[in-house]
This record gives sequence, structure tokens and C-alpha cells, in this order.
Amino acid sequence: MVVEADGSKAPATLIDVARRAGVHPSTASRALNGHSRSKVSPATVAAVLDAARRLGYQPNALARGLKMSRTFTVGMLVPDLTNPLFPPIVRGLEDRLREAGWTLVLANTDNDDEKERSLLRTMTTRRVDGLVLATARRSYPLLAEIESSGLPTVLVNRTTDEPTVSAVLGDDHSGIGQAVRHLASLGHTDIAFVGGTQEVSTGLVRYHSFVSWMRSAGLDADPGRIVFARWFREDLGADAFEELIGRGVEFTAVVCGNDLIALGGYSVLRAHGLRCPEDVSIIGYNDTPFNDKFSPPLTSLRLPHYEIGHRAADLLVEAIEQPGGPPADVRLKPELMVRGSTAPPRS
Amino acid sequence: MVVEADGSKAPATLIDVARRAGVHPSTASRALNGHSRSKVSPATVAAVLDAARRLGYQPNALARGLKMSRTFTVGMLVPDLTNPLFPPIVRGLEDRLREAGWTLVLANTDNDDEKERSLLRTMTTRRVDGLVLATARRSYPLLAEIESSGLPTVLVNRTTDEPTVSAVLGDDHSGIGQAVRHLASLGHTDIAFVGGTQEVSTGLVRYHSFVSWMRSAGLDADPGRIVFARWFREDLGADAFEELIGRGVEFTAVVCGNDLIALGGYSVLRAHGLRCPEDVSIIGYNDTPFNDKFSPPLTSLRLPHYEIGHRAADLLVEAIEQPGGPPADVRLKPELMVRGSTAPPRS
Repeated sequence: MVVEADGSKAPATLIDVARRAGVHPSTASRALNGHSRSKVSPATVAAVLDAARRLGYQPNALARGLKMSRTFTVGMLVPDLTNPLFPPIVRGLEDRLREAGWTLVLANTDNDDEKERSLLRTMTTRRVDGLVLATARRSYPLLAEIESSGLPTVLVNRTTDEPTVSAVLGDDHSGIGQAVRHLASLGHTDIAFVGGTQEVSTGLVRYHSFVSWMRSAGLDADPGRIVFARWFREDLGADAFEELIGRGVEFTAVVCGNDLIALGGYSVLRAHGLRCPEDVSIIGYNDTPFNDKFSPPLTSLRLPHYEIGHRAADLLVEAIEQPGGPPADVRLKPELMVRGSTAPPRS
Repeated sequence: MVVEADGSKAPATLIDVARRAGVHPSTASRALNGHSRSKVSPATVAAVLDAARRLGYQPNALARGLKMSRTFTVGMLVPDLTNPLFPPIVRGLEDRLREAGWTLVLANTDNDDEKERSLLRTMTTRRVDGLVLATARRSYPLLAEIESSGLPTVLVNRTTDEPTVSAVLGDDHSGIGQAVRHLASLGHTDIAFVGGTQEVSTGLVRYHSFVSWMRSAGLDADPGRIVFARWFREDLGADAFEELIGRGVEFTAVVCGNDLIALGGYSVLRAHGLRCPEDVSIIGYNDTPFNDKFSPPLTSLRLPHYEIGHRAADLLVEAIEQPGGPPADVRLKPELMVRGSTAPPRS
């Protein structure tokens, strides 16, 4: 029994037990259930059972303590799973969700608004307990609709201009800083930037960070050396490199919006008789698999994609189990992987 | 009303309407339902409504025609989504399932039996309508358990020694034949084979096919030139190449169990001062992304992975909607992608 503020006694609920044991209600539920007890540490089981005994908790009170309408499924939307960026994020998410007792419903949107809207409708109809979205755009009206429905939601990889839910992202400002400092330390001054689309946060932040870090390094972020690929794709990266070369400006190194854009650059440089890294150094972003196998191996910023998925699952489980908390914005540091595509400029 | 064989009349069911209109029951259901009608072509809607009218079908008979306990979710198990083989299969599956009104629940097993068993338990508890398994081993007792539960199941990519459910696979016999004929036509006779694990069907079939096609080409499948990687991984492929070279036998070309084994081979050849393709030609298998970017670009067998997922969804939807049909075994032809890693042997 729990003594209320007015002195009356109410039957103890699972929430009371959990609070007393200092654990999540879902952990308390598992510790109290013989079938799932093995998923919880013995010390926690002991603490929960002790709390239940002291409060006179009756297991059939369980229903009052848990929102019983849970489906224990979480929906995830990615633009396209065949983009090598996403599988490790999905794995990190799924591994952590499974530990916590949730299963993952996955769908691809192809960055198509109508498709995304229809998928979200399906997922809410199927009553997922929460959403993880890798599909955010800077302007993202769908998010307001989701929020108004009260469904716990976490963004990964990209965010919106005014995020109102939690997000787990790579720290792009740090990553681009590492790229610029690496090139500057090799002796480059005429550094170009081939960015991705400015419609998504990763495109915008990497571009702004480039300009800002060039200035910090005392270098000129000449707009004549800055171009944008229409999307983060190899073919559109090639188009952007053609545009850059077509301008006739001098450059000895290029920071790229992602690895696919850099790969598009490889073929365009070759077509123009330019060698990498002898004539032009190239840096990618994301460090997707096989970067070390390319010719030359591609210097890139390695994002902890698996960890991004894992942290997103943590935040989502928290948002489901303890709704109403403030949204968190988690940025994970990338690591510069120096390979054969960067070298000092020709003197 | 439907006239039975004994002359009596029974109320028409959804199945009767679907049969008369020549469509799946799920399509008939959608066409009859004002909310979902827009997902079906106008011609189909007309045909279904016409059939319903002629049979005197009453919509409240719907429940008899449909197993109402459906969750419209399908579970899929993959060994590891970060293996580049799987994302396109998952996409093909998800695209087709979405068209048919199902959502996909995805999980990774890491080829761990206990984990797989626990995930299957979760999925059946959550009452998925069917399963797609990319995790089959040649000996696969879990499958018998699933079958005894009556849950519609389709295998993809791998199968078991005695499959009793439908499977959609690459035609590995054809693929290895193309590899052997390509090397023979270049003039190679001393062709080695570095296979994958024999625990899974793809490992076994590719090995048997190699021996068989070498004989067909009038060449000697010398056991001294055949080694196996312990799993389809780059590091274990490297170990297997070390073993092959350590034997001191002559070879001018190697057919590999998959692309990752071939990549392991690249580094071992380099470490031994052997050049590809000048000293040794190499052929991979699967044609995973970026094979064209490696140094040298890797000749490989391209499997239609997206199509494998798509066909698996077709078979699963069929098995759910019309249970009891015979299992189908679909093998899709791979295509040889000739690139820089294969060339005539040095004379």
C-alpha cells in the first residue's frame, strides 16, 4: 500500500514499485515477470522484488501501471536503405530496441512526400509506439502533424530548421573543421567545396561550416570555388565537379558534401586528365564502406552510424516510457580517416 | 448466392466475388471498401462490384471471407543488414509488400541460433502474417518449428537441404558456369576456387557447380586448388587465399565464393607481390555496390537482389491469401560483369 498525501492508502502500482526500486516501469515489469526476468540483472530483480514486497504490490495491479495499448513496435522511415549510410544506423537502432523489447517496422520513402505521408498513415494506423525518422528536410510540415498526434518521435542523421523533437546527428561542424584543417596543414590554400543539396540540414550545415572554418584558418572561402550537387548522389556529384572545372578557377583540393559526390569527382577529374591526389586532393564525408578500397583510397570523415541508431533508440524508449521530457539534440563526433586521396599540393 | 454442387444455395463470400472477378481476395476487399477503393484500378473496382452484384454478395459477409486476425505485418530476418547483399533484397521486398498492404518488421540474427529463435518467438507473439528468412542454413531445424505453426514462410538468398517452403534464390549453378567459361575463354586452365562456408546452400552449390563446370570445360578441378573461407567475409577470405598460396600449387585465376572473399584475395596477392590481373585473374560473386570502383575493378556475377526481394513478397502474399499451394523454388539468373580483374594468363 502507498500512503497518499491525504493520508489514505491506495494499492501500490507498478509505477510505485519502479520508483521505489529506482528503475523504469518496464524494467520493474520485466523483473516481476518470471518469463522475462532473465533479461534484467539479478541485483535489479532483487531491488524490484524487495520494493514490491515492502509496498504490498499485487501483480494483478499491473494493468493500472502500464499503458496497455502498446504494440511494442517502432516505425522507422529511411529515404533509401540501399544508400550505404543507412544500414548501420538501422542495425544500431534495432539492436538497442530489441534489448528494450521493441521490434522495428521499416520503410523507404525515396524522399517522396506523398509516399512518406502514406507510410506515416499506415504506421499510425498500426499503432506503432514511436517513430524514428531519417527523412527530415529543413522544412518538414509532416513533423508538426506527427507531433500533434503525440507520437514519440526521434530524428536521425538529419534535422529540421526548428526541431521540436529529439535528434541524433553527426557533428558536421566538427567534421568539416577536421577536413579543412587537414588540407590547410598539408599546405593547401585554394580549397574548393562541392556540397550537397541545401534542402536538408546536412547539406546546409556542411556548407556553412566550410565557409566558417576556411575563415578560421585564414583562408578565402571564394564563392567561385563553391558549387552544389542537386542531391547527395554520384552522378549529380559528377555534374557539380564539371561545373566547378568549367568555371576555370584555381583549386588544389576539394571538400565534398559526402562520399558519393567525391566518387563522382574521381571520374570527372580523370576525364579531364587530372590526377588525385597529385593534381587535386579530395575529401569525402560519411566514410561509407569500401572507401579504403577505392583508387585512390578516399580520405573521409567517419560518422559513428551504428552509435547514432543506438542513441536514437535510447531517446525514443525514454520518450515512450517517460513522456513530456524536453527534446535532446545529440551530436556525435566524426573522425577523420586520412587515406591516399589527400596529399600536399604541387609546389 | 452461389449454387453449390448439391444444388443448394450458400451466401456468396468474398472469395467467391474475388474468384468471379479474377482478382485476389485482398484486392476484392479493397475494391468493395470505400476507404481503400482508390488503391485499386477503376477497371478492377468495376469488375469486383459487378461480380458482387451478380452473386448477391452482402458486404457484412466479409468476415467469413477474410481471416480477421491479420496484422498486415510481415517479419523478415537477415543475418546482418550491414552486409551489402541485403539492403536491396529488403527494399525489393518492402516495395512489393507495401503495394499489397503489408508493412515489414525487420531484425538481424548475426547467424546466431539463439538470437534467431528469440526473434522468431517475438514475431509470432506479435502475430506477423508471414515470414521472409534470409537466414537459412542447410540444416535448419527452426524451419520445421515454424512450419508446424502454419505461418506462411518464404526463404530468400539461401535455402535448406530439403526445403519444404518457397524460396527465391540466385541461380548459382548458372553464375559459376559463366565465371568458369569466361576464364576458360581467356585461356586459363589452372583455375583455383576459394569458396565460402559449406554450412549454407550458397557455399555448397557454388562449390559443386565449380567442380561440375570445370569438368564440362574439359579442365581439371584439382582439389589442391580448392580451399574454403570459414565464412563469407573479407578477413576469412584473406586467410583462405594465404592457405591456397601456401600450398605452392600453380594457378592463374581464382573463382571466389563472393565479393568479400575476392577483396580479401586482393590484399593477399599484393602482399605476395602478385598482380591482378597480370599474374592472377579474380572473379567475385554477388556484384555488391562499388565493385566497379575497386583497384582493379572486380569482375563478378550480378544477382538481381532487388528482384529477389520483390518475388519473395509475391510468393509470401500468395501463401498468406491462398494457403495450401505447393512451395515454389524460384532461381533468378545472374549476369557476368566483366571488369579489370580478369585478363588472359601470361603466356
